Amino acid sequence: MIDCGEGTQMQFRRYKIRHSRINHIFISHLHGDHYLGLAGLLFTMHLFGRKAPLHLYGNPELMVLLEMQFRLSDTVLLYPLIFHPLNPGETSVIFEDTWLQITAFPLMHRVPTHGFVFREKTFGRRIFKAAIASLSIPADRYQELRDGKDIVLENGVLVKNSEVTTAPRKALSFAYCSDTGYTDQYLKHIKGVDVLYHEATFMVEKEAGAREKMHSTTQDAARIALQSGAKRLIIGHYSARYDDLEPVLAETRALFPESYLAEEGLEFMVSE
Amino acid sequence: MIDCGEGTQMQFRRYKIRHSRINHIFISHLHGDHYLGLAGLLFTMHLFGRKAPLHLYGNPELMVLLEMQFRLSDTVLLYPLIFHPLNPGETSVIFEDTWLQITAFPLMHRVPTHGFVFREKTFGRRIFKAAIASLSIPADRYQELRDGKDIVLENGVLVKNSEVTTAPRKALSFAYCSDTGYTDQYLKHIKGVDVLYHEATFMVEKEAGAREKMHSTTQDAARIALQSGAKRLIIGHYSARYDDLEPVLAETRALFPESYLAEEGLEFMVSE
Repeated sequence: MIDCGEGTQMQFRRYKIRHSRINHIFISHLHGDHYLGLAGLLFTMHLFGRKAPLHLYGNPELMVLLEMQFRLSDTVLLYPLIFHPLNPGETSVIFEDTWLQITAFPLMHRVPTHGFVFREKTFGRRIFKAAIASLSIPADRYQELRDGKDIVLENGVLVKNSEVTTAPRKALSFAYCSDTGYTDQYLKHIKGVDVLYHEATFMVEKEAGAREKMHSTTQDAARIALQSGAKRLIIGHYSARYDDLEPVLAETRALFPESYLAEEGLEFMVSE
Repeated sequence: MIDCGEGTQMQFRRYKIRHSRINHIFISHLHGDHYLGLAGLLFTMHLFGRKAPLHLYGNPELMVLLEMQFRLSDTVLLYPLIFHPLNPGETSVIFEDTWLQITAFPLMHRVPTHGFVFREKTFGRRIFKAAIASLSIPADRYQELRDGKDIVLENGVLVKNSEVTTAPRKALSFAYCSDTGYTDQYLKHIKGVDVLYHEATFMVEKEAGAREKMHSTTQDAARIALQSGAKRLIIGHYSARYDDLEPVLAETRALFPESYLAEEGLEFMVSE
């Protein structure tokens, strides 16, 4: 989960999301609308008897605040809370396994803020299970096939790669840029992502306000999408002044047609 | 407002309560369900341009926590936030004006917790406006009439109290006992209140759990109501195990018939 505003727990109930399925929480920065639901969620997980470790990524002071809240309520969590500090101004790979790499990078806001980019690793070619069985291909030869090579088995049989594998699914990517003023400094981190979430607090008429408050306009978000080569853009974090979001979307699409509005409860699929 | 759990702002919107009308907030203790909505509400008041002072009463560490949250979000509140510390274990009059006195007193819970009692001051007898006009009673004689005395005006006219005044409305009182184990130590503070809110987390079958967690059962709440001479009892803070609250109410009414269930959005009138 990325960011956790007040009432996140209630939204979980509303959309039937089980908090037990969440194992990693990323907090972009310490403005209230991005983290004030976190302490309550962590308490709830405790009350529901969670045992699984929970990984939390955020500004180092977030953990100071939480530890104070645990102490004041005389709470010793039943599950391991593993905190990964995001130091202000630093870019770092904060998670990596066989399939996925997650990088945190600085955005430009009034308080230290990080964006996140989630990139699947490149997959090898997919081997047909039927070919493995009929040709008795041993497991230690799979990697050569995944890499696209033809192989000769010990019994002398030539296995043509094109006959036993198929192209892999493309590795997908998603970037999340919460609150930020317009700058090209983080473009390098989000190059070519399949889906970019980017804030668009204001329409262009309020550009001066956006600059002052270190927020983005619709045009800023669209330019970041264009310049980064993102395939699709989801905008959000709209100012409360906009009751009707259609003009906000129209202004974004004028520059970047593949733009969509983030709305409560809406699901987007990250795909090619 | 007494206590401020997560989502209080959303409930305000739901029940059309304007946060600008709130000038005093009382926090009984620092368990999450009693204060995690406070920081967000204070930020919202700031964003809405509040100028009026806000008085906040709570554990001294509450203010340390809030100041940290303000600092981390680079927020300097636009309105004066006047903090009144409730020191653990201490009883004190925390508010007093011409009409009302509010006292905070210790409850018995796992962390320092205060209850609150709101008592209107005793009113004098009410003087008929028509009598003031027709007899030209000067303002500096009102207090004697309020005190029930007959007076002789400068022109020699005897004004019989019973003819120009009527009995005052009874001074009303309300007590709030959030989370507490059963004890007689706070009975003296809530003597004879018109309405007592008291937690009743468990039914009697879970009395052992209630003792261990320093919560009350239905019977505990009813006994406190009986022993304090309260006129009516509102119970709340029910364990999530009770989907059906009718048995909870029935068990309370068996001991104290004038018992009612607190439910979201329900309004109770404090009256004789």
